Amino acid sequence: MTPLYEGKAKRLFATDHPNELLMEFKDSATAFNGAKKAEFENKGRFNKALTVLLYRALEARGVPTHFVREAGDVALIVKKVDIIPIELVVRNVVAGSLAKRLGRPEGVRLSGPLIELYYKDDALGDPMINDEHVRELALATPEEVVRLKAFGLRVNDLLTEIFSGAGLMLVDFKLEFGRLASDPATVVLADEISPDTCRLWDAQTGEKMDKDRFRRDLGGVMESYAEVLRRLEKELTSGESPSASASLSLS
Amino acid sequence: MTPLYEGKAKRLFATDHPNELLMEFKDSATAFNGAKKAEFENKGRFNKALTVLLYRALEARGVPTHFVREAGDVALIVKKVDIIPIELVVRNVVAGSLAKRLGRPEGVRLSGPLIELYYKDDALGDPMINDEHVRELALATPEEVVRLKAFGLRVNDLLTEIFSGAGLMLVDFKLEFGRLASDPATVVLADEISPDTCRLWDAQTGEKMDKDRFRRDLGGVMESYAEVLRRLEKELTSGESPSASASLSLS
Repeated sequence: MTPLYEGKAKRLFATDHPNELLMEFKDSATAFNGAKKAEFENKGRFNKALTVLLYRALEARGVPTHFVREAGDVALIVKKVDIIPIELVVRNVVAGSLAKRLGRPEGVRLSGPLIELYYKDDALGDPMINDEHVRELALATPEEVVRLKAFGLRVNDLLTEIFSGAGLMLVDFKLEFGRLASDPATVVLADEISPDTCRLWDAQTGEKMDKDRFRRDLGGVMESYAEVLRRLEKELTSGESPSASASLSLS
Repeated sequence: MTPLYEGKAKRLFATDHPNELLMEFKDSATAFNGAKKAEFENKGRFNKALTVLLYRALEARGVPTHFVREAGDVALIVKKVDIIPIELVVRNVVAGSLAKRLGRPEGVRLSGPLIELYYKDDALGDPMINDEHVRELALATPEEVVRLKAFGLRVNDLLTEIFSGAGLMLVDFKLEFGRLASDPATVVLADEISPDTCRLWDAQTGEKMDKDRFRRDLGGVMESYAEVLRRLEKELTSGESPSASASLSLS
């Protein structure tokens, strides 16, 4: 089967249903706009399982997503969407590019959630943009931008609480959104939510539990992803179904 | 006399008046955050004369500035201000960093004026920021940000018309602002307005008439500054005083 789209960490395939796609998580890890690459066994499974847990939790709390159902160990059935080419970043603590941009040390808590917009364009290196660039490029309507930011703050509140219950500090994260193919006026959360798209620090030790382990060559990348999954399963499920982490070994 | 402050293109000195400073224009040109440097004879005179012409024109049209009066060939007396560390850029046509950021060719007219904010911090390379970074860094109040943007659009309207009368297209420009030392609630235009801070293209030929001639090694830097001054004097003065350009030669 030929994918409709192949990105750095996922592939999208058509299904029998015109408004549904199959989204497959790859084992590839990339950083610095694709300049750094590696394969990690089980990465696709972990990120798929984490995304499912978090999408279910968000849906249960009233946040619409493109998630329809699971499709095996490394894939989901998702609603077909027109992806809005804006990456919305919500930050609670200084880290990564924000530390460089503002000249502040990593780890400083921000006075409140801080939102940044990035133009989703690999060829341009996903540059930071503002609301006026969004208007000029017609990436989204002004109403959609207001909506995306409100989504971001709401998801931040919910995820902060969920991760906190799992002993993890939500430092920052990236969201993507899409307009439903079946109803373009409806915008839903798309892409994934995983340690690839969230910075997560252990609440007690401050240890990085996310893709920064790969970006910064800290080692133990998949061990951290597995630990995040283990904690979230404990936090979010009541043991009614076999856990994804229990069925995987890191051997 | 020791300057209170020495920047890349100007120096500030105390005066006998506690709320007034002397702002001297240097002959230095710098680009790329100081990485490229040169001296140009008469540059200080040209930029001082241009700033005076434009500040007077803006004041006459209701825009408050820090300008008080001229002080010789290369200096002004200005009101003492607390500079707001935000560079506000207004763009009408794609050029410079916007071309790189959006992946659009230089020279494309924007659908409307586009405002960008930069954090005035040499050590950080004056990074682009958004309204939320301004809040987080407490660079200005939200009300001041609204005010600065309104200033930017108003100045853009006025300067576009003035430069157009002088056969020049105002591609983009940078503004700085300050809170009056004598009344911090009052925000006025500060710094300078010159071919160092505006991109100006000849309306007929599209020839660059601004600091890009220096940045891009196009030659004839001071000839262009002198031509801009000559045209603006013709546009803005009625010949009642000896012109600065007539009294200077480029030998």
